[in-house]
Amino acid sequence: MTDRVTICECFARDGLQHEETEVPAETKISLLGAFADAGFARIEATSYSHPQRVPAFRDASDVLAGLPRRDGVAYKATCPNPRAVERALADLDAGHGADELSLLVSATESHTERNMRTTRERQWEAVAAMVRLAAGRFRLVGVVSVAFGCPFEGRVDPGVVVEDVARFAELGVDMVTLGDTTGLATPSAVKDMFGRVSAARPGLPIVAHFHNTRGSGLANCVAALESGCRDFDSSLGGVGGHPAQIQYGEGLTGNVSTEDLVNLLESEGVDTGLDLDKLMAASRRCEQALGRTLYSMVARAGFGPAGRKEFQDA
Amino acid sequence: MTDRVTICECFARDGLQHEETEVPAETKISLLGAFADAGFARIEATSYSHPQRVPAFRDASDVLAGLPRRDGVAYKATCPNPRAVERALADLDAGHGADELSLLVSATESHTERNMRTTRERQWEAVAAMVRLAAGRFRLVGVVSVAFGCPFEGRVDPGVVVEDVARFAELGVDMVTLGDTTGLATPSAVKDMFGRVSAARPGLPIVAHFHNTRGSGLANCVAALESGCRDFDSSLGGVGGHPAQIQYGEGLTGNVSTEDLVNLLESEGVDTGLDLDKLMAASRRCEQALGRTLYSMVARAGFGPAGRKEFQDA
Repeated sequence: MTDRVTICECFARDGLQHEETEVPAETKISLLGAFADAGFARIEATSYSHPQRVPAFRDASDVLAGLPRRDGVAYKATCPNPRAVERALADLDAGHGADELSLLVSATESHTERNMRTTRERQWEAVAAMVRLAAGRFRLVGVVSVAFGCPFEGRVDPGVVVEDVARFAELGVDMVTLGDTTGLATPSAVKDMFGRVSAARPGLPIVAHFHNTRGSGLANCVAALESGCRDFDSSLGGVGGHPAQIQYGEGLTGNVSTEDLVNLLESEGVDTGLDLDKLMAASRRCEQALGRTLYSMVARAGFGPAGRKEFQDA
Repeated sequence: MTDRVTICECFARDGLQHEETEVPAETKISLLGAFADAGFARIEATSYSHPQRVPAFRDASDVLAGLPRRDGVAYKATCPNPRAVERALADLDAGHGADELSLLVSATESHTERNMRTTRERQWEAVAAMVRLAAGRFRLVGVVSVAFGCPFEGRVDPGVVVEDVARFAELGVDMVTLGDTTGLATPSAVKDMFGRVSAARPGLPIVAHFHNTRGSGLANCVAALESGCRDFDSSLGGVGGHPAQIQYGEGLTGNVSTEDLVNLLESEGVDTGLDLDKLMAASRRCEQALGRTLYSMVARAGFGPAGRKEFQDA
């Protein structure tokens, strides 16, 4: 196989958003530099969340200002509202902006209400306003949360998700992420959804953002890959998670572990463009930063066929 | 979908073999009864290993004598050598035998030498002797370990595995298990292997016995399912593992977690024949027996679409 995929490393934003351990800005900058060293072309760096609401990212501008800038490495920042985009623009004007912004909607009213404290209609108005502000200055990534199931409503109509993807495309975003926010996707649901979305919007890059809440994360990534997906989000150590999981006892983990995803893809002959030794070094540094063992299995077991001479020589 | 699969619950043998915690025979009997209550049609109960070499199973006969016997529930015991089969026959003659015996070979010389302290040639002679002793008294399950990769030799020639399966079939075993003993399989390797084996031996039931050492266990189970496999081994809590993993720092986990496998299969509309509430109760009892949190994600997060009314009502 000569397939090539792009993995966006989400440790520093999705991963840290609900961590109790506060990671200092200089540690984040050092980690993000290690991610760039390992070869990630897309890295989720921070969020322009309200500093009082999400104190973990009150250092957003400092982190972006401190990052090493390299050709071929795009840093992403999450923007929950137009005020956030204004901050992103100010940082960009000051010479240390993000390269990409992500703009979020949720596929259900209940999740929009509880997670974003608004309605879907108002959130779409906010997204339109954000796109107007940001257009031409950043690569824009639309995100549809709870695309494969909602912790409050259960089943999500795939037709609604396809409409949301189309709406993002009509607003002019560059790519759209489908989030399995609380690990409710299955391989067949993933194949069905990617089939529908690529039929509705051929050529639009769709990012698989899967959580491993129920252990199915990698199986769902394989289903996405088989459906033509070439963009994945994951987090070193599999950290991350969602407040609903914590509040409703649905476990704490987390994004698909980057180490485990890379091991599977590279063992299948899919090129991630990453340096496996540097990736493992970055994995260890993430565990050091949080002061505990994280959730990646490959971080414990080492790489499989991808990283072993006795497989490659055969 | 109306697919139906059979899961063999391996907690009490593969799961406990390398556990430091000693589980008393009465606890094992109670757990095995809970597995039968949950609806498992095949349950790995114990091993006739040498009592000094594997003290965890020195109670093999006591456990088998104490088990509840039910129509449609087959208990399996592992037999490493002809002496073990003689013990199994004595228990059967005494009225409390196993229903199935598993007979092991490894696909590589290195693994045979280090794990079974013999050669492949001698082990095949031992297997032939075991089949002669056991034929007609038990359902026989041939097992090919390290079928997808060897911790010592790396890549394993799929042709050797197909030959091993054929050899088991010629000896007259009823089903053959392919073991990914240290988590080196990938979905495409699984599809390739199941394709080869079913072409060589159409109609022979092949059991997918995958370990989650590198997080790919469920992705590999999906690949097996898509290749026509309808028999799976897994362990509640994902316990288990292999001495080589411990000795060589390859992590400790373990079989695919039954809870996570059942969640994925049932969420896909595949019928496991299991009662999900009783399965979760058995899961909790396994954690109590070992006195610690085990590795299943679904044990923490709860069932996804399979176990939720808000999905089923949609």
